[in-house]
Amino acid sequence: MARADARQPAADRPWRPATLDDLPLRDDLRGRSPYGAPQLEVPVRLNTNENPYGPSAELVDALGKAATLAATEANRYPEREAEALRADLAYYLTPDAGFGLHTSQVWAANGSNEVLQQLLQAFGGPGRRALGFEPSYSMHRLISLATATEWVAEDRAADYTIDPVAAADAVRRHRPSLVFLCSPNNPSATALPLDVVKAVCAAAEEIGGCMVLVDEAYAEFRRAGVPSALTLLPEQPRLVVTRTMSKAFALAGARVGYLAAHPAVVDALQLVRLPYHLSSFTQAVARTALAYADELLGTVEAVKAQRDRMVDELPALGARVVPSDANFVLFGLFSDQRAVWRGLLDAGVLVRDLSLPGWLRVTAGLPNETEAFLGALRGVLTENPSLLAGAE
Amino acid sequence: MARADARQPAADRPWRPATLDDLPLRDDLRGRSPYGAPQLEVPVRLNTNENPYGPSAELVDALGKAATLAATEANRYPEREAEALRADLAYYLTPDAGFGLHTSQVWAANGSNEVLQQLLQAFGGPGRRALGFEPSYSMHRLISLATATEWVAEDRAADYTIDPVAAADAVRRHRPSLVFLCSPNNPSATALPLDVVKAVCAAAEEIGGCMVLVDEAYAEFRRAGVPSALTLLPEQPRLVVTRTMSKAFALAGARVGYLAAHPAVVDALQLVRLPYHLSSFTQAVARTALAYADELLGTVEAVKAQRDRMVDELPALGARVVPSDANFVLFGLFSDQRAVWRGLLDAGVLVRDLSLPGWLRVTAGLPNETEAFLGALRGVLTENPSLLAGAE
Repeated sequence: MARADARQPAADRPWRPATLDDLPLRDDLRGRSPYGAPQLEVPVRLNTNENPYGPSAELVDALGKAATLAATEANRYPEREAEALRADLAYYLTPDAGFGLHTSQVWAANGSNEVLQQLLQAFGGPGRRALGFEPSYSMHRLISLATATEWVAEDRAADYTIDPVAAADAVRRHRPSLVFLCSPNNPSATALPLDVVKAVCAAAEEIGGCMVLVDEAYAEFRRAGVPSALTLLPEQPRLVVTRTMSKAFALAGARVGYLAAHPAVVDALQLVRLPYHLSSFTQAVARTALAYADELLGTVEAVKAQRDRMVDELPALGARVVPSDANFVLFGLFSDQRAVWRGLLDAGVLVRDLSLPGWLRVTAGLPNETEAFLGALRGVLTENPSLLAGAE
Repeated sequence: MARADARQPAADRPWRPATLDDLPLRDDLRGRSPYGAPQLEVPVRLNTNENPYGPSAELVDALGKAATLAATEANRYPEREAEALRADLAYYLTPDAGFGLHTSQVWAANGSNEVLQQLLQAFGGPGRRALGFEPSYSMHRLISLATATEWVAEDRAADYTIDPVAAADAVRRHRPSLVFLCSPNNPSATALPLDVVKAVCAAAEEIGGCMVLVDEAYAEFRRAGVPSALTLLPEQPRLVVTRTMSKAFALAGARVGYLAAHPAVVDALQLVRLPYHLSSFTQAVARTALAYADELLGTVEAVKAQRDRMVDELPALGARVVPSDANFVLFGLFSDQRAVWRGLLDAGVLVRDLSLPGWLRVTAGLPNETEAFLGALRGVLTENPSLLAGAE
């Protein structure tokens, strides 16, 4: 093998030294750090809202078979419009929508982040503005900035809710091209009452028709009786509901996000999507997972039980929690949430510090992971009671 | 099944009618059409520069096994930095570079289009300009526009070459943030002499250091003795060479593109890449294909033989060809290339009309496809000799 020892750069070809400062990087990117949770090797990882349940042996086998079939034509470009996958997703959304959806009303991409990026490329960009209500999923802001869309944010109330009148007023005041809502909201975990979505849509129409995005990445975990914004779609041609297969479908590894919206919205996204953006393997894997929806969504109830257990038991440790419709819980209130995060990590439990003063986010995992998390937190707070805000 | 008959929208929930005009689409997107070759069901498809050789049964099996393994952890996010895949790609590039590359000098994404988009997000954007030499791969212009980067283009010479002095002058005149080169150039098929790349890099340095991108999607098909721009990387911290696994690796279905550049460039891209942009399945499939590089690259010689046959035989039909280092041939010169395209299609052969007056592009396929193409073209030109420009 001529190149057997080529894994390391040859010493005789030193590269000219350079740093980011030597590159014509956009000014607004200078000094920034890449987004992403620390990927640490820890026994209990409850930091990225993954579903803890891996696929069954039967599903693994089906996914492998689907990929094998895709492999036989791997030399050909994928079906560019992913029509079959979009039809399956439309079908899957029917119960939540309360009516049948058509392929033309659904779009899919490599994770809901790419869906959001395409929406911003079509409706945002230079000279345009996106409005959010923070704290929320920080990629809304980051993708807005990466697409040169101005980002403006209003603060949520102290309990992390959004007042419909204040939200509508914010839309009228900022006159954005896109409004980001998030239901259930990440990181605060509570679903949005539909009256907030309706108020924002009404204000959006008043200012000439801006897009309203509802990020429902965690929708399948919401408590009983909370309707999805999907139910509003027929009346709202500029409303977009985004979803993901990463969470309830336990398919974070496959990177499949999607949206439901008016067909005109899908038409708009086709003007900015990269051609053949969804690989044959991704389409095959996603369709197979959708065929196993009953099995995969069966894990949702188990995850919700662990979430509810954390919501129930955290107060006994002196912690506060925000009501959760998601597969995670925001808990606090700490005088130094970073110290609590570090204490948990030392005990082998990784949760997420989103730099929200006083608060941390924990993913609902397996029963033994809930146990480990509650035990570790009990230990941290027992050892250092002053970490609880309000303690003296 | 409560949703068994839900595949069609329920008649009782009519959607409010809307068109693109009712949406706040960006002005520069209005009136545009989605990019992409027509996907038609035709016996001989020679229009998207796919590799005609599907993977062997052994490789299909290996790809399926790799995907099955990825499936066992499908509920977890992929390895965010794709380090193992990037290491494999670095290793693969060694012979063409002439020196060992390191993981930190390689980046991968969902097709080279996504790599280009990330480069434009990092180094282009509002108030910045990209320069190309047309005709070339039209996604360079389209992704520039989608990222709000101004696009300026210089014309190539009549024989589709680029004069190094004129190219350097264009860089000094337009003062771009990025220069796009393409070698072998799509659609004209000829590789770029390194003196053009060097001249552009020197001019780029003169104007303060703009990025120079060399799109080498078809590099593996180049004729003997044509060096890759990879060989220039150690001296050029702002030079980027992009590649794809779609063509030589016969892996268009998996959507894997990559680049080699200074590690600082990779650092810059991590500021704009979507987190977890490359799925676990994509990483596994790509790594497996790289392990079968010898088998897959074995198809390159067969494809080149068909290309050379077309280059040799087209003149006998009265057609002109441009010298090809790629897996396709640009041929003409026709008084109405659309009529020739249509005539070939009627004969069951789909080639590409890129709206380049007088010219069409044909992909090198299987021997019987070359036969079918040459036969069909002979038929079209025999029936209508006036389609040959210069014929009266």
